[in-house]
Amino acid sequence: MPDILHRVGIKSAPKKVFEALSTIDGLSHWWIVDTKGNAKQGGIIHFGFADMRVVELKPNKLVKWKCVRGPKEWVGTDLTFQLKAKKDQTFVLFTHANWKKPVEFMYHCSTKWAIFLLSLKDWLEREEGRPSPYDVKIHVGD
Amino acid sequence: MPDILHRVGIKSAPKKVFEALSTIDGLSHWWIVDTKGNAKQGGIIHFGFADMRVVELKPNKLVKWKCVRGPKEWVGTDLTFQLKAKKDQTFVLFTHANWKKPVEFMYHCSTKWAIFLLSLKDWLEREEGRPSPYDVKIHVGD
Repeated sequence: MPDILHRVGIKSAPKKVFEALSTIDGLSHWWIVDTKGNAKQGGIIHFGFADMRVVELKPNKLVKWKCVRGPKEWVGTDLTFQLKAKKDQTFVLFTHANWKKPVEFMYHCSTKWAIFLLSLKDWLEREEGRPSPYDVKIHVGD
Repeated sequence: MPDILHRVGIKSAPKKVFEALSTIDGLSHWWIVDTKGNAKQGGIIHFGFADMRVVELKPNKLVKWKCVRGPKEWVGTDLTFQLKAKKDQTFVLFTHANWKKPVEFMYHCSTKWAIFLLSLKDWLEREEGRPSPYDVKIHVGD
């Protein structure tokens, strides 16, 4: 079964990237404006359309979530952001894994994750994130 | 083993989308400026860094390539663009399949394919494609 994989390199310190991935304020600047909840390990983050349990946090290295509510194809899937510092940038290796089937919605989400990781990059490099509902649209009606 | 999956919806007729995917001129407007070769079924298209054999063409429906030269991780992989007309848009379902291992380069290529499919969309909707070397960069040194 395919997983969704992505990588971006961000001209920012691992600490800043980790903050954007592991705090409610950070997440609201690049993924979903209306983010609420508890972003600490074991907490539940509410993204409106979905809830994520924070499974693991390694400061400046790793963020792991499990989807516990949301679109039926997402429930039970695992999301990982791994950070790798390299010279003047921090690479973010992203996976959205354990989908049950490669349904068409998965194709859509893969492209959408690229959009949001570029929003994360733009937020950290230029304070120009485009969190939902201000995200780049990828089809009519998106 | 993961495949790379993406989907975009383009406000354009299947015939126009198919042309952009199955002619040298079309491909040069959204993927690689310096595209050469023979884009007919059985032909080889030269993209500079890689060569693709055109395995299958179904007018306005499907384009399939096999990578026959290029980065070692790409050689032998299969690329598919499936078109689905729906009301006022054409969906492109893209796969880049049969990678041997989910190496970090695959994560990079997945994000990069999203960038290029959005370039295809922008080319067809607004004549604003960003083919390489004018593509959106996703890390320092990309």
